[in-house]
Parts: sequence; C-alpha cells; structure tokens
Amino acid sequence: MVMKDGFKSLARPSEARKLLLERCDPLERHHKVTLDEADGRVAAEDVTASQPSPAFRRAAMDGYAVNASDTFGGSTNSPIRLSLVDDFEPGGRKASPIHTGAALPEGADAVLMFEDAEEVGRYVDVFSPVAPGENVSPIGEDVEEGETLIHRGERLTPSQLGLLRSLVIEEVPVVDRPRIGIVPTGEELVEPGRQPQRGETVQSNGIMIEKYVERWGGNPQVRPVLSDRPERIESGLDWGMKFDAVSFTGGSSVGRRDRLVEVLRRRGEVLVHGVAIQPGKPVALAIVEGVPVIALPGYPVATLVDAYFFLRPLIDKLLGSDEYELRGRVTLGRKIASSLGRLSVVRVAVKEGKAYPLRVSGSGVLSSVTRSDGFVLVPEDSEGIAEGVEVDLYYWR
Amino acid sequence: MVMKDGFKSLARPSEARKLLLERCDPLERHHKVTLDEADGRVAAEDVTASQPSPAFRRAAMDGYAVNASDTFGGSTNSPIRLSLVDDFEPGGRKASPIHTGAALPEGADAVLMFEDAEEVGRYVDVFSPVAPGENVSPIGEDVEEGETLIHRGERLTPSQLGLLRSLVIEEVPVVDRPRIGIVPTGEELVEPGRQPQRGETVQSNGIMIEKYVERWGGNPQVRPVLSDRPERIESGLDWGMKFDAVSFTGGSSVGRRDRLVEVLRRRGEVLVHGVAIQPGKPVALAIVEGVPVIALPGYPVATLVDAYFFLRPLIDKLLGSDEYELRGRVTLGRKIASSLGRLSVVRVAVKEGKAYPLRVSGSGVLSSVTRSDGFVLVPEDSEGIAEGVEVDLYYWR
Repeated sequence: MVMKDGFKSLARPSEARKLLLERCDPLERHHKVTLDEADGRVAAEDVTASQPSPAFRRAAMDGYAVNASDTFGGSTNSPIRLSLVDDFEPGGRKASPIHTGAALPEGADAVLMFEDAEEVGRYVDVFSPVAPGENVSPIGEDVEEGETLIHRGERLTPSQLGLLRSLVIEEVPVVDRPRIGIVPTGEELVEPGRQPQRGETVQSNGIMIEKYVERWGGNPQVRPVLSDRPERIESGLDWGMKFDAVSFTGGSSVGRRDRLVEVLRRRGEVLVHGVAIQPGKPVALAIVEGVPVIALPGYPVATLVDAYFFLRPLIDKLLGSDEYELRGRVTLGRKIASSLGRLSVVRVAVKEGKAYPLRVSGSGVLSSVTRSDGFVLVPEDSEGIAEGVEVDLYYWR
Repeated sequence: MVMKDGFKSLARPSEARKLLLERCDPLERHHKVTLDEADGRVAAEDVTASQPSPAFRRAAMDGYAVNASDTFGGSTNSPIRLSLVDDFEPGGRKASPIHTGAALPEGADAVLMFEDAEEVGRYVDVFSPVAPGENVSPIGEDVEEGETLIHRGERLTPSQLGLLRSLVIEEVPVVDRPRIGIVPTGEELVEPGRQPQRGETVQSNGIMIEKYVERWGGNPQVRPVLSDRPERIESGLDWGMKFDAVSFTGGSSVGRRDRLVEVLRRRGEVLVHGVAIQPGKPVALAIVEGVPVIALPGYPVATLVDAYFFLRPLIDKLLGSDEYELRGRVTLGRKIASSLGRLSVVRVAVKEGKAYPLRVSGSGVLSSVTRSDGFVLVPEDSEGIAEGVEVDLYYWR
C-alpha cells in the first residue's frame, strides 16, 4: 500500500542514522599541525606528557622558602626567628624570599607566606608554623609524566593548546577535515547573486550547508546548480565521487521531478528513503561506490533539520570524534502541540531562560530558523509538551 | 585594615564587570563583507528585505494548478472532470501540472495534489476538492518586503546567510573585530617552544587567551614575554595603546613582584583590583589613555576564569553584540562544597546529562579545565549545592 504522502514507509530517525553510520569508517588521513592551527581540530592520536608538570617543586605562594620543622611552635606572641638569606641552604634555620611559581631550593620543603612573618633586619620572625609541603606544588601536581593529555577523537580547545604548550608540545596530529561535496539541484534554481525571475528561486541552501559543515569540522565544496534531469544528477554524482561524502539538496522526495533517488538506486544502494521527522521527512541516505550520499530536501528548514540529524553525525563519524551536538535543559514558556507518529523538530527562541516555540507554517520558512536559538524534539508517541515542562534544547551550531 | 590575602577589599564580579563596561563604547569601525566571509561576524546595521519572499505565489506541493471553485463537490465516488492543459488558462475548468516551488499561473488559486486526482487521457478526475489558497505559498509568506532580516549586533549564522542569499543580498555590514593586545609577563617565563630549565615555565597563557579571543570575535595579537620590572611593564603598556583593549597575564596580585597595578595606577585609572571570585581573585580592571586594560592573573585557570568573566563581555561590548555566553541547565550528579563570601567557579564534566564537579586543587591545574565541559557558579552566600539540584551550566566557549 502506498501511503498518501507517497512514501512506502518512514524510518525512525535514530535507526536511519544508524544504518548510515555503520556503513562509514573514520578517515585514515592524518597530518600534524602547529598549536596555532589546532583550535577546534580533532586529535588523530592520544597525546601524552613526556615530562611532568610542574617539573620541579614550585612555590604556590609568595613568601619564604623554609624547612617546615624550623617553624614549628612559632606564634604571634612567641615568634621563632630564622636567618634571612638570599640563597637558601639546608640546616641552620634559614629563610629565603621566594615568589609564586619559582623552584623551591634544595633542602627547603615549605613556603611561609609573607603575611605569617615579619622581616627584622637580617632575620625573619615566624608568627605561624607551616607543615612540610605547605604552599608547595609538588612535581606532577598538574600532569604526571606519561599521562594522557589529549585523547584521540577530542576536539581541541584553547585551554588544551595552553596545556600542550606548557609541556613543550608544539605540534598535534589531527584528522584531515572530511571533504564534503554539496550538489544543489532544482529546475527553478538560479545561481547566487542573480535576480530571480518569476518562478525562479536563488540557490541558497548551498551556503547554509557549507558554513555548517565548516562549523562541524568538514571541508565543504559547493557545485554550481544542476537541473533535476537524471543525466544531470548523474554528472553531479560523478563529480561527488572524489569527496568523502556527498550531499545533494533538492529532489529527494517522491514527486515526478524527484529523480535523484531513482539515480541513487541505479548507481548504488539506497539505505533509507523517507524518515518520520517533521520537518525533514523526504530525506534519502545511500552508499554509492563506497561513498556516503545524503539527499537533503530542497526546502530550507527541512534541509537544515536533516543536515543536523544526518550530515553532522556523519562528519563526526568520519572524524572519529565525539559528538559536536550541544544541548542544555530549558523550561517551556508556552505549550507545544504536535502530531502523533513523527518526531517533531520544534524551533524555539530562548528568552530569560525559557524556551518559546515559534509560530511557523511550512518548511520553507527559513526566517523561523534565523529567529530561533535551537530546537526541541517532541517524540513520535507524544501529542505535545505542556508549558512549564523541562526539555532538552538543541542549539543550532 | 589589610585583609590576610593582601587585598583591601574584594569587588563583586557583576559590579566589577559593570564598572569596566560602562567605560567602554562599541567600535565605530565597520566594513562590508561578502556572505562567504560573514559567518559568525557581528552585523553593524539592520539589514532589511528589499523584496518579499516568495516574490510570487508558489506551489507548495507537486500537483495541478486549478481554480479551487472548479473542484468543489469532487469525491472518489463522483469525481469532477477537468481538462488537462500544459499552460493553465483561467476559466473553462482547466488543470495544468505544477511542481513544488513553481509560480502559480495567473487565474489559478490552488494546487490539487497528484494523490487527490487521476489523469484519464486529456482529462484530470478530481477526487477531493481544494480550497482557495490550498497548497499555495502566498507572496511574502516567509519574508515581507521591508522586514528586518538581521538586527544590528546579531552574530550571523549559516541559516541567516542562506536567508540573505535567497533575497539577493550578497554583502553585509559587519563590525570590525576588536583588536586585543595580549602581554604575558613573568620573570620565570620562557618563550613557547623552548625547553624550560629548573625554575622556568613556558609562557602558555598567551595561546589560550588568543584562541578564546578569536572564538569570541576579537582579533588578538600576543606580545613576546616581558619581565615583571616596572619599566618593562611600561613598555608593554605603550605597545598595547594601539589596540582596542589590552590584556596582561601575570603580575596582577599584591605580591612584591606584582608591580603591574602600581604601573596602571600611575598611567591611568584602576577601576577594580581584587574580585570575590574563586579562582580568579587577583584581577585588575583599568582604563589607560581611554583604552580598557584587563590584568589577568598568571595562574592558568584563574586567567581563564577572569578572561571569561571580563574579557569576553568586553569584546561583546566593543562589538555592540549580544552576549556570546552559552549556557544550559544540568542536574548535579554529585554535591559541590564551597566557601562563603566568594563566587565559586566550579569546573564540571557532563556525563549522560548530569554534571560532576571535578576534584581539583589549586588554580594552576589547567588539566582540570581541559577535562571539564564548563562550569557551575556557587553564589557568595552559599556553602555549596546538593546532589540532584538543577543548575546553570556555562560552557567554556
């Protein structure tokens, strides 16, 4: 039986994603980059510390290097007097000024803070004892020798770059950015920058997908627009075979002009066509000559939703990386109504910590995305979510 | 009275930030960039639509362009027969095939879906009536002419770039990236890439702050290391006067070697020195010759916390932009203990939707940041937060 919407059956989004990802392997192409180029890149191997940090016992406060046992019993009423020296030497009840971060001299085992002492000529009066190790950072306090600093698959952050630099590691192995070929199709589309005539539309999905692919860690390239004719789609597919993955936009539905899936079936294996997600239903996932192909719908919001649900995790998989998805919890400021049987992707705007669903109609309404901070998912078996309920917010990132 | 920690008094973080920001104005330097260069940039002016979208009545489904009143009364048992024509003409009960996105012909006012009809030779049998406007996107459905597409101060997203492109807007006015001069200071510091000797430390705060400044939308430049001597600090300050803001790292405390604040007092106005935040207490905020100066502490985690609390919002202010801060709600997986009287910045790792405070000691322990996803704030008047309580999570971004 053919359903009214033209799809024989609709796959669950999570299952569709799994079918695609289990057919793809992480890239084996790696290269080294300097720390300056490494922010946001994905580590290709574990990076371990070849030295501890700190590499020497270090003063954790400004004060005097002392032997702790020399200070025992000191108090405000009955201070203990030590000799003030420039260079500490063990034995002989000495104290020498030391600043935060400096190496503790041999024989000293604690730092007496300036506030707990007073200089009197060539002497230091101790008002409060210190314990051995007090105000001292031991060797390896921050990082032990051999410790794993970065795990394979992590996306590098600025603080990780600081940590690597502090340990004299100036290069990191990173996974190549997956190359993603983007093929916009559509009879009515005109190239960017051209004023569309009646019945024409500017090709605008390309830049949206391109820039998200960059944010997600991929290296995108957008092809000039192709018409919907099967021979043109074939040439787009041929062009795409040099990439690590290909993403078509448009022509993924079941209409008379939607010939893309027919071409994909002839040239490779279609894993999924039609997913129970709203907006975003008419998406197809395929493998052609070993290359994953995602056929995104032409409507901008549906394109974006499916790119988020299928292309983003595909890039993560190719990178061998953690999920880049970013979510938090928010309270709904207004109820969401939804229909049973489909995962609904509801765009929300966040104001003062509460999420408000945007009133929108139609998956062509891109301006609803540009006004939203992210989205909330309403499960297939739910008819909506009440005001005041806490939900996961997925940021558009 | 001098407090034991050497600070006369500690400002509240929110008040300290306010004192700094009210002395700074948004940059007036703007320029235009192409859409390809615009992702993440801050809009310098409102951008409005010079045309509606769609600019013509558009089919929202594949089907037949019809005059709705011609279909009234059609049913499966008693279909209504229309003439199938290639080009629709008003009157005469016509139907012509139309695809999604195409312009609705003059005289037609609805789209009859293929599924609700059947072609019989040169005729179309209508099984279900359509209402006027059904399956049609009216002019301006997505964007009305004159509507504001982008507001001054917004950070541009890929979907906004798609929206602009669809409206044939290929350039956007953006605010120049604020130039941030970064001056690392410290007697014990050696330049990056050099193996530190006993008592030396590699200068590693520079790259961390530099890369965060880039993420936050600024244009950073890191100066070679300076020693702590006042005349060297003065030369660093002179170098910094060509930037929109200057950030020192190190030398911001009240120790004997911490001469930076003394120099800032002599050369300009110190607004704040010492903030009730842990880690991050020894920070100073100043204005020198009209340029905001943030003196960050030398300890990496304290540096990062203060950069997050003061430098990030300063960049936002210079950009005239929304806050870049990204937060969500999480449930604590383990209780947090804290001390009264200070805002505590507690690093947490998020696992399966719950936040776990990291067990750390000392603000030098940068590896605790690299293992954390973000942080939770414990207010000054609180001694901690119990397990299971929901809190705001601030992502390190």
